[in-house]
Amino acid sequence: MSTTDPMYYWDYLGLDEVLGSQRLVSGSGGREPAHDEMLFVVTHQAFELWFKQILWELESAIEDLAHEPVPEPLMGQVVHRIERIVAIQPLLVQQFHVLATMTPLDFLDFRDELIPASGFQSVQWRLIENRMGLPPTQRLRILGASYTSRLSEEHTRRLERSETEPTLLGVLDAWLARTPFLRFGDFDFWAAYRDVVETMLERDRRLIESNPSLDEVVRRQQLDAFETSCRTFEPLFDREQWDALRAQGKRRLSQEAFLAALLISLYRDEPALHLPYRLLTALVDLDEGFTAFRNAHAQLVHRTIGGRIGTGGTSGHEYLQAAARKHQVFTDLFDLATYHLPRKELPALPEDVREQMSFRYVD
Amino acid sequence: MSTTDPMYYWDYLGLDEVLGSQRLVSGSGGREPAHDEMLFVVTHQAFELWFKQILWELESAIEDLAHEPVPEPLMGQVVHRIERIVAIQPLLVQQFHVLATMTPLDFLDFRDELIPASGFQSVQWRLIENRMGLPPTQRLRILGASYTSRLSEEHTRRLERSETEPTLLGVLDAWLARTPFLRFGDFDFWAAYRDVVETMLERDRRLIESNPSLDEVVRRQQLDAFETSCRTFEPLFDREQWDALRAQGKRRLSQEAFLAALLISLYRDEPALHLPYRLLTALVDLDEGFTAFRNAHAQLVHRTIGGRIGTGGTSGHEYLQAAARKHQVFTDLFDLATYHLPRKELPALPEDVREQMSFRYVD
Amino acid sequence: MSTTDPMYYWDYLGLDEVLGSQRLVSGSGGREPAHDEMLFVVTHQAFELWFKQILWELESAIEDLAHEPVPEPLMGQVVHRIERIVAIQPLLVQQFHVLATMTPLDFLDFRDELIPASGFQSVQWRLIENRMGLPPTQRLRILGASYTSRLSEEHTRRLERSETEPTLLGVLDAWLARTPFLRFGDFDFWAAYRDVVETMLERDRRLIESNPSLDEVVRRQQLDAFETSCRTFEPLFDREQWDALRAQGKRRLSQEAFLAALLISLYRDEPALHLPYRLLTALVDLDEGFTAFRNAHAQLVHRTIGGRIGTGGTSGHEYLQAAARKHQVFTDLFDLATYHLPRKELPALPEDVREQMSFRYVD
Amino acid sequence: MSTTDPMYYWDYLGLDEVLGSQRLVSGSGGREPAHDEMLFVVTHQAFELWFKQILWELESAIEDLAHEPVPEPLMGQVVHRIERIVAIQPLLVQQFHVLATMTPLDFLDFRDELIPASGFQSVQWRLIENRMGLPPTQRLRILGASYTSRLSEEHTRRLERSETEPTLLGVLDAWLARTPFLRFGDFDFWAAYRDVVETMLERDRRLIESNPSLDEVVRRQQLDAFETSCRTFEPLFDREQWDALRAQGKRRLSQEAFLAALLISLYRDEPALHLPYRLLTALVDLDEGFTAFRNAHAQLVHRTIGGRIGTGGTSGHEYLQAAARKHQVFTDLFDLATYHLPRKELPALPEDVREQMSFRYVD
Repeated sequence: MSTTDPMYYWDYLGLDEVLGSQRLVSGSGGREPAHDEMLFVVTHQAFELWFKQILWELESAIEDLAHEPVPEPLMGQVVHRIERIVAIQPLLVQQFHVLATMTPLDFLDFRDELIPASGFQSVQWRLIENRMGLPPTQRLRILGASYTSRLSEEHTRRLERSETEPTLLGVLDAWLARTPFLRFGDFDFWAAYRDVVETMLERDRRLIESNPSLDEVVRRQQLDAFETSCRTFEPLFDREQWDALRAQGKRRLSQEAFLAALLISLYRDEPALHLPYRLLTALVDLDEGFTAFRNAHAQLVHRTIGGRIGTGGTSGHEYLQAAARKHQVFTDLFDLATYHLPRKELPALPEDVREQMSFRYVD
Repeated sequence: MSTTDPMYYWDYLGLDEVLGSQRLVSGSGGREPAHDEMLFVVTHQAFELWFKQILWELESAIEDLAHEPVPEPLMGQVVHRIERIVAIQPLLVQQFHVLATMTPLDFLDFRDELIPASGFQSVQWRLIENRMGLPPTQRLRILGASYTSRLSEEHTRRLERSETEPTLLGVLDAWLARTPFLRFGDFDFWAAYRDVVETMLERDRRLIESNPSLDEVVRRQQLDAFETSCRTFEPLFDREQWDALRAQGKRRLSQEAFLAALLISLYRDEPALHLPYRLLTALVDLDEGFTAFRNAHAQLVHRTIGGRIGTGGTSGHEYLQAAARKHQVFTDLFDLATYHLPRKELPALPEDVREQMSFRYVD
Repeated sequence: MSTTDPMYYWDYLGLDEVLGSQRLVSGSGGREPAHDEMLFVVTHQAFELWFKQILWELESAIEDLAHEPVPEPLMGQVVHRIERIVAIQPLLVQQFHVLATMTPLDFLDFRDELIPASGFQSVQWRLIENRMGLPPTQRLRILGASYTSRLSEEHTRRLERSETEPTLLGVLDAWLARTPFLRFGDFDFWAAYRDVVETMLERDRRLIESNPSLDEVVRRQQLDAFETSCRTFEPLFDREQWDALRAQGKRRLSQEAFLAALLISLYRDEPALHLPYRLLTALVDLDEGFTAFRNAHAQLVHRTIGGRIGTGGTSGHEYLQAAARKHQVFTDLFDLATYHLPRKELPALPEDVREQMSFRYVD
Repeated sequence: MSTTDPMYYWDYLGLDEVLGSQRLVSGSGGREPAHDEMLFVVTHQAFELWFKQILWELESAIEDLAHEPVPEPLMGQVVHRIERIVAIQPLLVQQFHVLATMTPLDFLDFRDELIPASGFQSVQWRLIENRMGLPPTQRLRILGASYTSRLSEEHTRRLERSETEPTLLGVLDAWLARTPFLRFGDFDFWAAYRDVVETMLERDRRLIESNPSLDEVVRRQQLDAFETSCRTFEPLFDREQWDALRAQGKRRLSQEAFLAALLISLYRDEPALHLPYRLLTALVDLDEGFTAFRNAHAQLVHRTIGGRIGTGGTSGHEYLQAAARKHQVFTDLFDLATYHLPRKELPALPEDVREQMSFRYVD
């Protein structure tokens, strides 16, 4: 656009390109195109448009959160941009419902002509997964092949480069681990929390041991259950155990970062923790939104191409269902609830700590 | 794509064009672009993508329904394609919710640079309205100007041409008016329906006149209300009245077509009327979906640019709210409910008519 | 429930009562009930359940926000509870879509037996409107009658009492008007904002007057438009004009409160304004959600009972459409966007003001 | 209600009971109730209200479809009622999103007081699963216990009785197996379909065997994949294999019913197959809707109570995720797509068969 031209809606939005890019393969060679191929193309283009937007927000949020320290006004921006992605996600799910109006029989009209193109080749989706923080080692493999195996060289390089770039999980971990309030003056959250947990567990153990109405079999069962529950807490206080779980991919955050997330979620009403808590919630929503997207994708594939078992013993929808569970990134944040204490048991924050968490101006 | 190349997802979907077409005006001249302009551009591009898909389905449905007679297998296709648009509409509404994450202040970062581009310049949206059957004479005017006044010459011509093309309302009217069952052998639906209506109204009048518990003031009120109710039915049986309403834009369908729609909705359980009824329902859903879209648009404009009163005494969101009410096309189908009779009062279909409405094969 | 009984899901939820309360009038007297009356009853009960929840949140938010001053931890709670209502609202809209699966003909199977019961008798809905802050004088009247005219005495009294209780609009106004940062030490937001506005307007006027490429007709038009724009700003700085608009119902907030809302929305990135801004946004969402609810209701009534014109010259759906526009409560917050200034024009906050808006602890 | 009383909205809807049934356990003994327990109770009551409505529709659909033969007007009714449940399902998913506004910490305020009440005790949900056709033998077990193990005697009996009642899967199977068009005069769909499949497979095999560009390793791989594909078709033509799969729970429909469903989905455009196809589609939507419900439930449990590993080695959300996959009922209908043939390969229906599938009246 020349700077002297008045802005025109059609040109500003590049509609010649956007609306001129639907090339129906079923209509090549002068044939009448399959009516539903248009829906197939447009829906996938809409997915990719929104993936671009998601990457735009994701990269910006990562960049903002990577500052050390993060300037206060940027915190609201990070949360706002993550929440925007969360607002986009229902669109993606709904788009699968639209695509489901293409019946299996209508898909067959052009499906064979697409081979070997496949949604597995969506570079932007893989970029999203990488920048979210899905470690390459945690990816499901398909027939033993890498997730880049069917991509062009240029796209493969782009994805490999992204594996070395900062991730949302990574910058979150660093930012959490720096939380000043974990140890603040005389206050040691770790110790205070541990005290409460141990007291609670001890009380529970005594209740079981001294309950006269339990026969020995039930008492044994309850004690076993109690031991399991105790072991859930152990890694919180034992770095070695934690790091072992992390090496197995069962934990993603560092122990320090996890503790900080716990502190934030327990004392979220203090002014200085409000936005950090909002961020943690937004990240849970974000992960959940992508899970809903993967589940919707799995259902669509099941109904549109059926359950044909592939040579590798897997079918498309089963792979996608499995990915919906395994490719979650912020599972540690979901698991925070496991370690919550009832408000009335919470260690009280010392007054000077609370004061530091407040605004300078007080009404 | 050369026919010898294997199909590649990125190329098939034209992603070089689709993902390369976001040109942020705020970033021109080497400036740092306004972050939210990307959302603004991508959302509008997504609208236009779906508008293209909607036109694709709409034009196909019009073409199918324009056949005389419409071959049976095409009927299912028409309904399916209208229902697909209905499945797309919630996406459009949801996209406004996404765009609402752009705050007024963020919009101000680039809003002035867009002038005079405007959503009023969406050619595809105007095409949708025209092909739906919105008569140019029913359009709200903005400051006295035509809806094409801010468009390029090429786009103006495209819209003017579309005003002469078949519309969904038009082909629906012709198809309804041909309904064979309105008069079938000895059966005259019009006469049978009128008989029932007149008997019901007569009974209602006598109830009011003879009710001993009414004093004269209330009786007068009830008789006035009754007369209003009677007058609602008159145009159904009086072509002159009907055509007068139609000339004023208060009715859109021909009298004959409206009667046929009434018959279909009253006897929808007969096999031959099942799909026609489904079509009428889908058209009501379709109109409602566009109304929801316009309402969502009005709300978004209100919250993003406020209620600044323009020179013409109108503001953006007030225009859009008014259009949401005035630009509905299939209001006659909404109004069908006004003329429904309780099932137990319905004139019974003669056996030979019911038989003709059934499948040849009977279980 | 006896305290010694173990808690049982069915009893805890009162399911004997909840699931035993569907009494189909069409099934009275031993008749076979109309199948769809169950949907009609259940949907309305679900509406009322959610209305109860909305009132629970609304009353709590009003109570919290009525504190002077509002303790910091309560602010997050207020926002959270308003946002919860916003999460409930799409349920209400979706419930109308479910009810729309009851066709007009199916409704006729039992509709006459419901007379004179009507959704206008929903006491909880009227309570919600009153507690939101809809002034009784702004209510649309139906046939000249009060909104309580068809209610029992007990319900009428309950509504009349609610008219005297604190409203969300009312406590918001008081809380906004107390905002300390409007005038803070040497800083006077009002004066600073006014300076910028006047400078901008003066610059705009000179541009029009001195533009050599305008002929006199166009220059006159542009100056007229400019004057209109100027007049939009006047009431902000002139209490008399403001109060006159308020007396006409065109403004709902006090001038002081509106100014504070403007300050919050312009400097939202300062830590102390983050939650207040979030609150304003939530209130806009809340109003918009009820508007969407009313619009969905209007559409449902239109398709289910048609456009029959009542004795008062109004039809159900037209009343509801009008209410969707007139019964909005927080229109002032929508209109804030009218008075926004581009970030680069914003008066800078003095350093000591910014400091007071920050946390005591600084990283 | 006395028959002489005018109908009153509040009484008609039983609002004294519905709105009086929220008894907050956290508020017992004169304590201040936990604010969020109201949301917990209301949301669960809303679930149960909708479960009642779903059962109402489900039972009616089962009853209608159990007729032999099903009278034509009932077919539309069956589809309509299934589609109504499909319209209700998004409400259920959305209700989980509302419940997710209750944070883990807020839940802890009253969670312990609910023990041992649990959503696993929802009798109506179990009834829905049973009447859908989930065989008791296919249910996931929890710690080895029956799904009735934590229910009252009365509820256990009600569920056991429901296991003997007709199921939607059961009446569908019987209705499909009676489809007249599988063998009609000289036409044998089974044989015609088999011919086409065998010809296609033979052609595929020859292509692989004779392709000069394949080296022996790749040819071997492709032939293996081809064999797997062939084996997928075998059970269609071999009742013993089919029944073996059915005994393992891998197939739910009888072979005859599955074939009929295949015929319906391949020739869906014939008038007499239109509604049957619509039914099959609605059943896929129905199953998918419950899957989405279970997935949303799993996510909610994960975020609200975390991933605490129970004594049985399972956690709540993992059980629910597994159920989302294993408790689907109409998987056979999803799998139909596996056996679809491209339209151009479809055996043509003989003219007399097509005629029998048409309406008696022809335009």
